Amino acid sequence: METIFNTQHALHHSPGELVGDGYVPAFEKPERAELILARVKEVGLGKVSAPIEHDLADVLRIHDAGMVELLRTAAAEWAALGRTGPIAPFTWATRGMREDRIPRSLNGRLSYYCFDAGTPLTATSWEAIKASADTALTAAGRLIGGAGSAFALCRPPGHHAGSDHYGGYCFLNNAAIAAQKLRDNGAGRVAILDVDYHHGNGTQQIFYHRDDVLVVNLHGDPDSEYPFRLGYADEPGAGAGEGFNLNLPLPPGTAWAGYEAALRQGIARIAAFAPDALVVSLGVDTYKGDPISHFKLDHDDYLRLGGIVKTLNKPTLFVMEGGYAVAEIGINAVNVLSGFLGG
Amino acid sequence: METIFNTQHALHHSPGELVGDGYVPAFEKPERAELILARVKEVGLGKVSAPIEHDLADVLRIHDAGMVELLRTAAAEWAALGRTGPIAPFTWATRGMREDRIPRSLNGRLSYYCFDAGTPLTATSWEAIKASADTALTAAGRLIGGAGSAFALCRPPGHHAGSDHYGGYCFLNNAAIAAQKLRDNGAGRVAILDVDYHHGNGTQQIFYHRDDVLVVNLHGDPDSEYPFRLGYADEPGAGAGEGFNLNLPLPPGTAWAGYEAALRQGIARIAAFAPDALVVSLGVDTYKGDPISHFKLDHDDYLRLGGIVKTLNKPTLFVMEGGYAVAEIGINAVNVLSGFLGG
Repeated sequence: METIFNTQHALHHSPGELVGDGYVPAFEKPERAELILARVKEVGLGKVSAPIEHDLADVLRIHDAGMVELLRTAAAEWAALGRTGPIAPFTWATRGMREDRIPRSLNGRLSYYCFDAGTPLTATSWEAIKASADTALTAAGRLIGGAGSAFALCRPPGHHAGSDHYGGYCFLNNAAIAAQKLRDNGAGRVAILDVDYHHGNGTQQIFYHRDDVLVVNLHGDPDSEYPFRLGYADEPGAGAGEGFNLNLPLPPGTAWAGYEAALRQGIARIAAFAPDALVVSLGVDTYKGDPISHFKLDHDDYLRLGGIVKTLNKPTLFVMEGGYAVAEIGINAVNVLSGFLGG
Repeated sequence: METIFNTQHALHHSPGELVGDGYVPAFEKPERAELILARVKEVGLGKVSAPIEHDLADVLRIHDAGMVELLRTAAAEWAALGRTGPIAPFTWATRGMREDRIPRSLNGRLSYYCFDAGTPLTATSWEAIKASADTALTAAGRLIGGAGSAFALCRPPGHHAGSDHYGGYCFLNNAAIAAQKLRDNGAGRVAILDVDYHHGNGTQQIFYHRDDVLVVNLHGDPDSEYPFRLGYADEPGAGAGEGFNLNLPLPPGTAWAGYEAALRQGIARIAAFAPDALVVSLGVDTYKGDPISHFKLDHDDYLRLGGIVKTLNKPTLFVMEGGYAVAEIGINAVNVLSGFLGG
């Protein structure tokens, strides 16, 4: 399996985040991608290639132009204002406020487009963000060219980014951009299987009203897990998309037995959909040692996961998402790919 | 004029906030109230009394029971979870998410009820929050008892807190709670004049559908100023409340001349409403030296402001809100009261 890897990913390095124990170093850090790449090489997964730069038009098939413009230009605007800290909002619209009015100021636009406090932009983030989308697009291109599988080693990740909002360490939704690229190049139906510990709220929102892209999400119950405000079982899709979104929230402490049952349910739904291609949003924060998650999967379970995905027998694009047990991230992520190839 | 002051205010002390220059010490700090109290004594404004403890029922006339319960119990729950940092959310619902579903977990409830990242609870905050509401209620009691004016030296402040959401350094809306107390004790109509630099989004939301409480807000244009997502000129109230909300947003750099014109417009609207009592949400972050605001009022302008409020000739309750030029806060706040008494 060919891996697409963008060295520019390190240009995005969040200075920290404010969580339950105060202001702490960011969990989503450059080391993550480097360790996965090292493991790809160690097991000899296959060729490693750099992404091809794509036109922004591919991004704009999925994302709002105002949001993309903010991501692209916020750093320069921030510097011009003389601000020195991470570029992030600090207040949000809630019930009774004007959710749909876009303020003109930078602080106001950040509040409008970014939905959390842990996803700051830095001076050089945009280059990494764009390269991450290019990584997914380049890998999608391999499937379009006939490859049976490819691995987009994206960083920053993408599945929390919606059409016009970003957060959860995610800026552009790499998996959604790749799925649309597949749709635009011959695939009549695409399925997205999101196995990250956290619900892929962005992916769900992007395709919620569509019946040509099925979204299946396995994740920690949002009642107690990020993003808290989406990802419940009673979200089936809407309009033409009704029946084409499947959430399988699982309780904290879920180990392989419980996980496998839900995974097979999701796989059965995808098989019934009969997609022309499959995109896997690959997070490995389901690992028992993950510092911010609460499932109990172990190394070998990722081999099994890959093997079960393989049973669908579809052209499959793996897109890297989360996973914060950094020392183990390479083993776990690449085990999914090895399990897929060996399955 | 009698001042009501709660010594417990110091039990709320935010450890910091994340803004444009990174994680910085909190602007809303205990010193603020102490300096205003010192100035009250220095000028001999009048008697200083402690608040009387009121039943929570007075708070629940304005605020959602679930939010009040969160404010009251979050610290114990946080400690039980072994968390050591400030108690605050880190993600919010935006377009396409489920704004109205209340997650069960503490992180989820914080996300639901708190709309910003700069308003953390600490282990002892609730006692200060409750005492601040009691301060406003006790001062309202003085008006109910026949006093022509009273000063509720509240801290933490309140005007950003809505019926079921809090933020902007505010937890309970002291001014709204006091206004309702006046309504419940003989005042048929109450007007609230909010002169804090920041739009009182909470006060607006609470009374937006009511015609018995007129809300007039003078503030920095939310296009560029906190809270960004409410406080525009085209928010007249709704339903029965249509015509009973007046926003007068002003551009950065506004000095006394521009301010006075807007103030007189607001005062004229209040006079036409003919309220039985007036509540002034008194913020002095309109001062030229304020570190997070952009108006240019000077010490003497606050005397003038108080004098203009006096022309309404109504029983008047002043409720302390913001002001972050700490060394000057006592002079500016008490100048409004002196101007009122001398006007």
